[in-house]
Amino acid sequence: MRRARSRRSSDLPIVAGNGLVDRRIFMAGAAAAAGSAAVPGTAAANALAIEPWMKVPGSPFVGYGQPSRFEDKVVRVWANPPNAPGTGAARTPLHRLNGTMTPNGLHFERSHSGIPDIDPEAHRLLIHGLVKRPLVFSLETLSRYPTESHMAFIECGGNGSQLYQKEPAQLNLQALQGLVSCAEWTGVKLSILLDEVGVEPTAQWLLAEGGDASGMSRSVPLAKAMDDALIALYQNGERIRPSNGYPVRLLLPGYEGNMQVKWLRRLKLTAGPTMTKDETSKYTMLLPDGKSLQFVFPIEAKSVITQPSPGLLMKGPGLYEISGLAWSGYGKIAKVEVSADGGKTWALAALQQPVLPQSLTRFRLAWDWSGGPSILQSRATDESGYIQPTRAELIAKRGNKALYHCNAITSWRIAESGEVQHVYA
Amino acid sequence: MRRARSRRSSDLPIVAGNGLVDRRIFMAGAAAAAGSAAVPGTAAANALAIEPWMKVPGSPFVGYGQPSRFEDKVVRVWANPPNAPGTGAARTPLHRLNGTMTPNGLHFERSHSGIPDIDPEAHRLLIHGLVKRPLVFSLETLSRYPTESHMAFIECGGNGSQLYQKEPAQLNLQALQGLVSCAEWTGVKLSILLDEVGVEPTAQWLLAEGGDASGMSRSVPLAKAMDDALIALYQNGERIRPSNGYPVRLLLPGYEGNMQVKWLRRLKLTAGPTMTKDETSKYTMLLPDGKSLQFVFPIEAKSVITQPSPGLLMKGPGLYEISGLAWSGYGKIAKVEVSADGGKTWALAALQQPVLPQSLTRFRLAWDWSGGPSILQSRATDESGYIQPTRAELIAKRGNKALYHCNAITSWRIAESGEVQHVYA
Repeated sequence: MRRARSRRSSDLPIVAGNGLVDRRIFMAGAAAAAGSAAVPGTAAANALAIEPWMKVPGSPFVGYGQPSRFEDKVVRVWANPPNAPGTGAARTPLHRLNGTMTPNGLHFERSHSGIPDIDPEAHRLLIHGLVKRPLVFSLETLSRYPTESHMAFIECGGNGSQLYQKEPAQLNLQALQGLVSCAEWTGVKLSILLDEVGVEPTAQWLLAEGGDASGMSRSVPLAKAMDDALIALYQNGERIRPSNGYPVRLLLPGYEGNMQVKWLRRLKLTAGPTMTKDETSKYTMLLPDGKSLQFVFPIEAKSVITQPSPGLLMKGPGLYEISGLAWSGYGKIAKVEVSADGGKTWALAALQQPVLPQSLTRFRLAWDWSGGPSILQSRATDESGYIQPTRAELIAKRGNKALYHCNAITSWRIAESGEVQHVYA
Repeated sequence: MRRARSRRSSDLPIVAGNGLVDRRIFMAGAAAAAGSAAVPGTAAANALAIEPWMKVPGSPFVGYGQPSRFEDKVVRVWANPPNAPGTGAARTPLHRLNGTMTPNGLHFERSHSGIPDIDPEAHRLLIHGLVKRPLVFSLETLSRYPTESHMAFIECGGNGSQLYQKEPAQLNLQALQGLVSCAEWTGVKLSILLDEVGVEPTAQWLLAEGGDASGMSRSVPLAKAMDDALIALYQNGERIRPSNGYPVRLLLPGYEGNMQVKWLRRLKLTAGPTMTKDETSKYTMLLPDGKSLQFVFPIEAKSVITQPSPGLLMKGPGLYEISGLAWSGYGKIAKVEVSADGGKTWALAALQQPVLPQSLTRFRLAWDWSGGPSILQSRATDESGYIQPTRAELIAKRGNKALYHCNAITSWRIAESGEVQHVYA
């Protein structure tokens, strides 16, 4: 077997510097061999081995299926203190996935006291505080209300925080940016339940409290709760996973993940924010002047290149697909640009349709890699017109102690060896 | 705890007979208690027990997550001959799911010789026959081509075949209609690979062959292959599950499932159809005159009510959400109508947006159940204008020996006891 038909740049419709190519080259019949192994025609029928798995019956059915044993590296990874195995974050292997969905087994999770083992028969949701008629909902009573389904990304407010560091962390995409995932969430609009309890005019906020041992709680503006908040019961069709809030989670499309309280047990209508520990000492951004930004809720537009990325080796010059994910808490992604020369020139990537608001959007572009050193970057613009900043721009504005909401452009350096490395550029 | 505020039909915006209600009643602030348990205001803060799972740290992280142990009934069920554990079909528990996606662990599967344990490093896809340049693709070479992602349902051609029987099978939705699922599939457009091999003008069909021990193979029109066929590599973001064709499956959006060959190893361009056993002795429709319909490929518009359905008990009169799924191999679902009086009157259901072509579409409608016997039905219309037939209409046209492509309206009878039963109506 040999590499077929290598094509050089002179043949290709270049759209930006260092080999970015119009994706339509693949569509127009101008076949661009991506390393396929040509087989002589007469030998074609013999080219396929009768593999061992064709000679014996396969395995029988199972009630709940699992991935192939050959995919055992496609797992979440995590770090946590030695005496607190349930405290920390498990990250989605974005570099090994394609499409826009995250399968439930790989959705990232951030837990503050492990994953509670909640009996859904016993679980209750209380809505009280500044309301006319406090109500307690069981899962069965919730099932009587109308449901809706929405694709939504969830990103931890701390995702990408390593980019605030002075030197680029030598980590892969999963370790750097794996605290974002996307699923179809189904549940009851919170506004319907708030109408049920009758919100008092003085109420402007809600306290949302989770049912784990950490009692995670956050304040949510009433306007968001009345707009698109969902009392989510299902994740990608099935009941929400324990690690993502089984049996009830608060979904606040586009807001930082920590506010989308898992194992939701209580919503209290209040006049002002409650000032819980997780919105005062944490999930606030320390600025260079010593003050902190508080209550920065929506996730700003952001994107990352998932393939290639550190750990995935480029195997020689030629055509590759550059692929990645973009998202914004402010609505839909309007465009994603890709650079192969460290930001000197940019080309528009194709966006997988339909582009949905507050969801992961897959972008793709063809690249004819010359084999020389290159710096790949992606830059998202959302429908509000906001443009994802460079790291230098973000640091200039926020300093490097902010920890949260780091949406700076992430840069990958491709070496002549084909190795990919996280750099600042 | 008590049932709150029961409302009677006189208050409600009725849209069709026997209690079908405009769904906006929930949206307009006219709160309609769906059995919520009201708690006196002063007792509200004490209404929530501190459950055992709030008193101890939860469980630690795992690499690949699983559903809650309390959801152990949400599994596929199957039937097969005693000596052939891998032959048969495992069905999706549609009655326990909500939304439009099917999680990968619950996607239905139809296997003819079990699930092969394919090593992705060894697997190859050969494209040959009436081509200028036969090529063999490994997974690595496929990864160099541009990818696309599309939501698509897959339905077994035999789904719902029990409705051809003279008496209504006393089965639940999973057993009757569980051979349909929906996922986001990502892969390489087949047309790109066909351009690579160079299709000869005499080629009008392809033979698609799977890599299991049954050597499942089917003929596919070249026009479909050049249109929207996908060499699928990913399912809901991760690599395709073994039960759904790992590592490569042919996706033919809207066509009967059997043609969407799993474990795809070979595509042979041919002048005519190959007439394999699975398109002659099987997957053809025996008509009343003794002739058979062959090569009926796209799935006709169809819908089923998932909640309520047999096995799910209605707990007394009051408001419920009627929810279900609709799909068509001919494009998008245009509308779904629901009847609560056995087809005498119909009301439009709300369709979850975005409605995507060749995908499962979730429909929903509110129902104020009087507590009396009722017959629930749903009727889908697709964008071609085709209307899902009643069972009587389908049988009149096809007879009752056809076995495949049964898209007749499925009817649920609600008894005064709240039990739900499959009936012909």
